[in-house]
Amino acid sequence: MSGGNPTQPFLRACRCLPSEVTPVWFMRQAGRYMPEYRAIRARHTLLEICRQPELAAEVTLQPVRALGVDAAILFADILLPLIPMGIRLHFAEGEGPVIENPLRTAEDISALRDDIAPHDSLADVMEAVRIVRGELGARAPLIGFAGAPFTLASYMIEGGSSRNYLKTKCLMYHEPDAWHALMGKLARVVADYLAAQVAAGAQAVQLFDSWAGALSPADYAACVLPHSQRVLHDARLADVPVIHFATGASSYLPLLKEAGGSAIGVDWRAPLGWAWRQLGEDIAVQGNLDPVALTAPRAVLEQQVHRILREAAGRPGHIFNLGHGILPETPVDNVKAVADMVHEFSMRLTR
Amino acid sequence: MSGGNPTQPFLRACRCLPSEVTPVWFMRQAGRYMPEYRAIRARHTLLEICRQPELAAEVTLQPVRALGVDAAILFADILLPLIPMGIRLHFAEGEGPVIENPLRTAEDISALRDDIAPHDSLADVMEAVRIVRGELGARAPLIGFAGAPFTLASYMIEGGSSRNYLKTKCLMYHEPDAWHALMGKLARVVADYLAAQVAAGAQAVQLFDSWAGALSPADYAACVLPHSQRVLHDARLADVPVIHFATGASSYLPLLKEAGGSAIGVDWRAPLGWAWRQLGEDIAVQGNLDPVALTAPRAVLEQQVHRILREAAGRPGHIFNLGHGILPETPVDNVKAVADMVHEFSMRLTR
Repeated sequence: MSGGNPTQPFLRACRCLPSEVTPVWFMRQAGRYMPEYRAIRARHTLLEICRQPELAAEVTLQPVRALGVDAAILFADILLPLIPMGIRLHFAEGEGPVIENPLRTAEDISALRDDIAPHDSLADVMEAVRIVRGELGARAPLIGFAGAPFTLASYMIEGGSSRNYLKTKCLMYHEPDAWHALMGKLARVVADYLAAQVAAGAQAVQLFDSWAGALSPADYAACVLPHSQRVLHDARLADVPVIHFATGASSYLPLLKEAGGSAIGVDWRAPLGWAWRQLGEDIAVQGNLDPVALTAPRAVLEQQVHRILREAAGRPGHIFNLGHGILPETPVDNVKAVADMVHEFSMRLTR
Repeated sequence: MSGGNPTQPFLRACRCLPSEVTPVWFMRQAGRYMPEYRAIRARHTLLEICRQPELAAEVTLQPVRALGVDAAILFADILLPLIPMGIRLHFAEGEGPVIENPLRTAEDISALRDDIAPHDSLADVMEAVRIVRGELGARAPLIGFAGAPFTLASYMIEGGSSRNYLKTKCLMYHEPDAWHALMGKLARVVADYLAAQVAAGAQAVQLFDSWAGALSPADYAACVLPHSQRVLHDARLADVPVIHFATGASSYLPLLKEAGGSAIGVDWRAPLGWAWRQLGEDIAVQGNLDPVALTAPRAVLEQQVHRILREAAGRPGHIFNLGHGILPETPVDNVKAVADMVHEFSMRLTR
């Protein structure tokens, strides 16, 4: 990440620079808990929203207007880049994504394209980035994102969500060559996709390894880390902050740091101060309110926000966020209240 | 836990005493992956097996005969003690447990019994313990077990398994008095139930907090720890080793230790050596092979078993186990092979 001296609190925190307030945004801040989103979703499928730049941009901007957060995050589905690779998918109501041609054999993996040319194949996503940037101006930076190779591989192999990742790990253990071929292709695709978002105007990117916590640290290190590293260290991302987030992997934070990222996202299962000590002080951290705590009474929420800010101790480099995405059942007022609390409380913290 | 100088490797390891081999047993070592179990299950429901002492004893003994493990663990369902509390439940094929009268209000909680007198209400379980002890003799010790208050509470409130524990946490955040009343009742029930198993002959007990990893450390400390502590420090358990296991909570191991237990079970997401350093050296550790690794080729399994034994460094107090229960898809031969490897490799480790 190159130098520069950004003025926006989010971009400053990503570089461990001090600012007056702790910046805050929320994973899945655009989504079903918002009435404005549901109004659009009532008339369009998820994939339609993702593939129509005006709709994707509108949905991306909704939480910035409603919540006063310090960053926008592009609205898109993490599985989009699989489509130009040759994966067919749809979203079943209430069941999440369904991969119609899950990977079963080494031949299936050989047949996947990895030269997806995202400027063309995902031109609608890049157009959404450009629209959002135009609308946002200096108001808030835009974060682009992608799923990490392991998380995408697990969807492709399992055919959807999974409880135990049995098929994924079976491929990993029984066919290491096919596994690394798949992960290598995904690393190229994800890096190209993120680089295209940056070229289109994204001012930071986040790599979501949502299911990395299914792995032992030894398997992560041997079978996943080198591929995530290739993405996170891609030269085309060198000028923007890169946030690396994994769920359920707080017991091997140093490996996530080794894989890369200028900031590491920490889920809610770890005390934030402890997590930062595990990582070392030369890196920014993002997190880590339990998303379910957003349904708590205001007094409980205040305690929790206070606690997290105290754990971060006002040290430059903290980006307040959840430990995972906002749930559909979440009251919007509580999300807005947390954004306000973070700003208000953090201004009063000794720095 | 009182003194004594046991000769069996499992009981020695629980007391951090050295022995010639690292003892090994497997969570869910009795279960669907075994043909002997499936033969019985084909003729009986899960609850029938649990409630007929001869069947429960037989199923408990099957893996001891087949695998050469160093301990038996009582076959029972963790929800059994809820039945005398007033909970009605059944097991839906392929869906897990269904609670027919989930807890909805503070009145529901008030109505629960907590004086379950397990010697009577769960007499069949105690009889199974006696039968198993008679059959095992000095061959291997018998571990009794119970679900921890949080895990049981989450089943009672959600009505079954859950993804986000939204209802459970809502009660915790919105009705703290009702929450603590429920957890207090469960602590009494669980402590009485474990004490009855010890009185019937169990030589160690394990408390399973399978879903504790849903919680932030702060919520665990405030809302769960005191109740687990009451169970784990019950005077009636003072003479037997107590293993405290939680899934997905490796980022707050010191809190699990504070709650209690002479050994802490570690799931597969943490390097075992690192976990032991988090806990301090004055406590035994149990773990921590990824259960899915049991489906791997033999050479991969050997690497993984070696790695875990090296991480434990031959230090007295390591009980080899999985990081979670055996999956139904697991080949029995691999489980047996791991038991043999643990014995063989650990004998060669410098102590």
